[in-house]
Amino acid sequence: MIKAGIIGSTGYAGAELVRLLTQHPETEVCWCGSRSYIGERFSSIYRNMFRIVDEKCLDDNMEELAAEADVIFTATPQGFCASMMNDKILSQTKIIDLSADFRLKDVAVYEKWYKLEHKSPQYLPEAVYGLCEINREQIKNTRLLANPGCYTTCSILTLYPLVKEGLADPNTIIIDAKSGTSGAGRGAKVANLYCEVNENIKAYGVTIHRHTPEIEEQLSYACGKPVLLNFTPHLVPMNRGILVTAYANLTGDVTNEDIQAAYEKYYGQEYFIRLLGPGACAETRWVEGSNFVDIGFQLDGRTKRIVAMGALDNVVKGAAGQAVQNMNLMFGLPENLGLTQLPMFP
Amino acid sequence: MIKAGIIGSTGYAGAELVRLLTQHPETEVCWCGSRSYIGERFSSIYRNMFRIVDEKCLDDNMEELAAEADVIFTATPQGFCASMMNDKILSQTKIIDLSADFRLKDVAVYEKWYKLEHKSPQYLPEAVYGLCEINREQIKNTRLLANPGCYTTCSILTLYPLVKEGLADPNTIIIDAKSGTSGAGRGAKVANLYCEVNENIKAYGVTIHRHTPEIEEQLSYACGKPVLLNFTPHLVPMNRGILVTAYANLTGDVTNEDIQAAYEKYYGQEYFIRLLGPGACAETRWVEGSNFVDIGFQLDGRTKRIVAMGALDNVVKGAAGQAVQNMNLMFGLPENLGLTQLPMFP
Amino acid sequence: MIKAGIIGSTGYAGAELVRLLTQHPETEVCWCGSRSYIGERFSSIYRNMFRIVDEKCLDDNMEELAAEADVIFTATPQGFCASMMNDKILSQTKIIDLSADFRLKDVAVYEKWYKLEHKSPQYLPEAVYGLCEINREQIKNTRLLANPGCYTTCSILTLYPLVKEGLADPNTIIIDAKSGTSGAGRGAKVANLYCEVNENIKAYGVTIHRHTPEIEEQLSYACGKPVLLNFTPHLVPMNRGILVTAYANLTGDVTNEDIQAAYEKYYGQEYFIRLLGPGACAETRWVEGSNFVDIGFQLDGRTKRIVAMGALDNVVKGAAGQAVQNMNLMFGLPENLGLTQLPMFP
Amino acid sequence: MIKAGIIGSTGYAGAELVRLLTQHPETEVCWCGSRSYIGERFSSIYRNMFRIVDEKCLDDNMEELAAEADVIFTATPQGFCASMMNDKILSQTKIIDLSADFRLKDVAVYEKWYKLEHKSPQYLPEAVYGLCEINREQIKNTRLLANPGCYTTCSILTLYPLVKEGLADPNTIIIDAKSGTSGAGRGAKVANLYCEVNENIKAYGVTIHRHTPEIEEQLSYACGKPVLLNFTPHLVPMNRGILVTAYANLTGDVTNEDIQAAYEKYYGQEYFIRLLGPGACAETRWVEGSNFVDIGFQLDGRTKRIVAMGALDNVVKGAAGQAVQNMNLMFGLPENLGLTQLPMFP
Repeated sequence: MIKAGIIGSTGYAGAELVRLLTQHPETEVCWCGSRSYIGERFSSIYRNMFRIVDEKCLDDNMEELAAEADVIFTATPQGFCASMMNDKILSQTKIIDLSADFRLKDVAVYEKWYKLEHKSPQYLPEAVYGLCEINREQIKNTRLLANPGCYTTCSILTLYPLVKEGLADPNTIIIDAKSGTSGAGRGAKVANLYCEVNENIKAYGVTIHRHTPEIEEQLSYACGKPVLLNFTPHLVPMNRGILVTAYANLTGDVTNEDIQAAYEKYYGQEYFIRLLGPGACAETRWVEGSNFVDIGFQLDGRTKRIVAMGALDNVVKGAAGQAVQNMNLMFGLPENLGLTQLPMFP
Repeated sequence: MIKAGIIGSTGYAGAELVRLLTQHPETEVCWCGSRSYIGERFSSIYRNMFRIVDEKCLDDNMEELAAEADVIFTATPQGFCASMMNDKILSQTKIIDLSADFRLKDVAVYEKWYKLEHKSPQYLPEAVYGLCEINREQIKNTRLLANPGCYTTCSILTLYPLVKEGLADPNTIIIDAKSGTSGAGRGAKVANLYCEVNENIKAYGVTIHRHTPEIEEQLSYACGKPVLLNFTPHLVPMNRGILVTAYANLTGDVTNEDIQAAYEKYYGQEYFIRLLGPGACAETRWVEGSNFVDIGFQLDGRTKRIVAMGALDNVVKGAAGQAVQNMNLMFGLPENLGLTQLPMFP
Repeated sequence: MIKAGIIGSTGYAGAELVRLLTQHPETEVCWCGSRSYIGERFSSIYRNMFRIVDEKCLDDNMEELAAEADVIFTATPQGFCASMMNDKILSQTKIIDLSADFRLKDVAVYEKWYKLEHKSPQYLPEAVYGLCEINREQIKNTRLLANPGCYTTCSILTLYPLVKEGLADPNTIIIDAKSGTSGAGRGAKVANLYCEVNENIKAYGVTIHRHTPEIEEQLSYACGKPVLLNFTPHLVPMNRGILVTAYANLTGDVTNEDIQAAYEKYYGQEYFIRLLGPGACAETRWVEGSNFVDIGFQLDGRTKRIVAMGALDNVVKGAAGQAVQNMNLMFGLPENLGLTQLPMFP
Repeated sequence: MIKAGIIGSTGYAGAELVRLLTQHPETEVCWCGSRSYIGERFSSIYRNMFRIVDEKCLDDNMEELAAEADVIFTATPQGFCASMMNDKILSQTKIIDLSADFRLKDVAVYEKWYKLEHKSPQYLPEAVYGLCEINREQIKNTRLLANPGCYTTCSILTLYPLVKEGLADPNTIIIDAKSGTSGAGRGAKVANLYCEVNENIKAYGVTIHRHTPEIEEQLSYACGKPVLLNFTPHLVPMNRGILVTAYANLTGDVTNEDIQAAYEKYYGQEYFIRLLGPGACAETRWVEGSNFVDIGFQLDGRTKRIVAMGALDNVVKGAAGQAVQNMNLMFGLPENLGLTQLPMFP
């Protein structure tokens, strides 16, 4: 049994990790860290786990935890994981960081977009960007895993084959993304109150959202040149789910078959990516509660553009599920172990 | 492997059966019946099951299915199962009926409340009312199982120990129930459109809802005398979940400890019933997606009443999950096999 | 023009007052008080009022405001209005208090249920309970008006004729109430976050909610004897609306006609009360955005009980709208002036 | 008093017309037509209008109605209005058509996108496209008014000054639109059931939505050349509201001030358009229930694009409200008469 510790276990992503790891046949949760709720039973905060995880929350002592756990998940605010990282911890355990601290290779880009000093840039070179379907082999051998952002996972997976195969012009990409409200976290803010979110839709972070450089960096690796794009997130009155509607100019006389072939080339064997085919629209309801990503697309012969659509559950494939998928890879387990929950509808 | 056939597989309860049985380690779904969608892929109707159940829907030929399946689930409109039932079918397979056809022992009561002629009352005596926590032993040995209604399951389980132990006066019971909209089914009706249900709460079927006699009958068995009560269902703008708020006069100087002891006596060993204790309020969010029933209560010293609250997921413990739990009992499997999904939040 | 000042203008009830008074033909809002947002434009906090009320929020100096305003609305936490009240203020202006400070005549009851010391009990005798349809004449002549609670307004109006006419036994009353989330206020609390409220229903404050004694006191005036009852509020995932489902034993062989006659006797001429008639269920969607109260009922011949249902918009008739209705009465204006908005659907 | 008849009064847009015209000081609704509900009280279908509009629904006899009414609103399926139109009707009354029949000047474009034969193309030349802020003068003098689509109104108003002033390249425009579910109408379809829409977001009609040519035609008038663009609508789990997020390449070194100046030039004096300024994001909640359109924008210096955002209430400014605004213009009334309802929040 893999002993897993979670720092930040009482946020939505952290709590989903607790839920997934509790059901995972090869792991045991040994530490539910939560600075806000030290000494309180986990199940008193997330009563869905009543009689399942009744242990008390511990603090966020990573050094102590490193000595005990085979893997540490950090579902913490930006900056925390980088500030705690050191050689001793990395020599004792594996780290799966759900924050952005080790996602961007260029520390200057990180500091510009996050307005934070990076406290341990020396570990950036060895950190692996944990988008399993793209970086599977490197993931298997790392001890420091940067778990991708929710919008990022959905955006990159939707666009990667198009950019990699040169079917879409990367510098015409516009990503209009829509997220359920769990993505906003469990902090007590007026903006996230029920009456403020319900019966509303809005964009936020327009042109400045921090997932932008993460998407650009990964897509630039795919096409071998810098990519600049527009990414606009929206807040939708629902709990879970991200839908990405991505637009790009086609690079030539591209057909449905070309596009479908590109998707099949990269994802045809992937368990967690479901290709819906030409003309189909991805919908968040069909992936809720699962680690699946659904992808569909539509070509526009009039404007010579593609509209590609991807949907995932932001708390699962966008956070905790992908973290478990990464753990499976890092520990040589079947990649979908503990992640075969079917989407729940309605 | 148990071969399971489902008649009415494209309603919400039927589709949840498909989902649960697909994940069940000892069953195989051999027949997705759907009169409305014959010849269409199941996953084209419920795209959450894309690449999981891509078989085409079949019709509702119970005779043919009986020869093939070890168990048939009927998630069909009232009257269908009774109209199809015969000795041959019952000799070949087990029946788990999610409709009301075999729930009420008195055919006159059935015909009065359902305004339907019962087509096979001769099977009523052998039919077992499948409330697992109450009727476990009879369930193990039946071939004709009447799966309880969603409101009924929640109402009876919340009140049973109080009535059985004589702590509450059965003829003062008032059950105010609230249900998510999946309980209204997938029929295309104006009343169930998004804009009609959203931003609204209403009672319906006041004093005449068909689950009333079912609750009364079962509670009358518990206390050994006829019970008349008020049951009022409400439609809530959410997908899943039933909350029952039940009121009754206490029969004497009853304490929190007395009540808790009564609940423990009947449910202390039950996997699927979680007793929250005195002063706790059950909430539907904490059971969503699971087969759990959460029960809490509050005594009112001023009015000498108890307010007991139960919550469950109407599609799982209120329908498909309880049907699988019954199947497990009927086939000698561990009762919670395939039903250990933890509640999903948020 | 009546000059109106509002203390606590940036809560949901306060903001609705701003909105209603801005549209009212005989009033002018001269003061938007908000301790949390002093110096910020009102329309920067409630952008629905952009270009309509762009004035800056002021503090909560009631003495200064009393010198300026013809009427002061206090939409403030319990205890504030009582702590500020003095003879000078009352000699200069009229007070409409949306908090509970002057609703209960017995200071001991107030202090027991609110766990607060009452700072100006000397004004309780002159304060008038502003349930317009019941206390219209006293309201016209008061300078200190206690605006009723939202649950209270709905509960009392639904039950008053039944109790007043002796058709229902007051000591068998059970009120099961359901409220939209705006009733929980705009405070930043985890419990009121979108993901916590959405897809959930729960009871809260069971047996101890502070509106209980308010309902009991008013109904005891109606029947001339003390009343004890159960009141259970529930939180519903919607923005606005309160539905009350009230149960009581009938006192004799009461018919639909008797009940309807009682309602007609007290409400037949009321502009804001709409009697739906026997067998009809009130729904919150049909009153949203208006000052209407819809009332329906159903008799149960089996249990000899009545199920009476009332619905209103908690922010309008349950708070700001009723406050304006009271203002109209206090200033000799037509009672529905500025309050004829038709319910908005969907 | 203007006598107004409504054909199709029991759809969501038609019912909103009834509500708005009932409150309008200069109109009287003389005819609520509804093929589905002939002979039923309007208030039995829309109970928000109980005791307000209790008249019975009539059929859709436009000839008879034309003799009686000063203006006829047709809130009917595509094709109906064109099929009924004739010289006699137009000589007797004014027509405000909420369908698409007279919006597109080119009958071939209409027939291609709507897959319908146009039954009275001879009236297309005289029909005026009723986007009040753009075509005010022509509207004043027409007898046949084509009321714009909901998505169209929001899209065009958001983009018009940018295109008109040459600040944005029209052939790079991508419009990603999000609508509440009332836009899908009140037809009983499975796809619009509560449980299908709730907790989901999806695109639909990708590259083929019928509002596309309407937007293109109007924007081509603005820039004087043909425009091809991408328009993608999404269905959002909320009742009302449209948000348009529009992207376009800037034509040069354009500043916030340039953009703001362009918006001010065209909308600075408009009552119903509220310019939020640079950096502000429009949100549907702030316009709900009103005839306002809120517009904000953000420039992206990295990609040299503008992200412009517009929000309106699809049932009001996107349908019934704009129709009343057009009526006011056509009858020489103040443009905002009966349309000054302030947005309701929450």
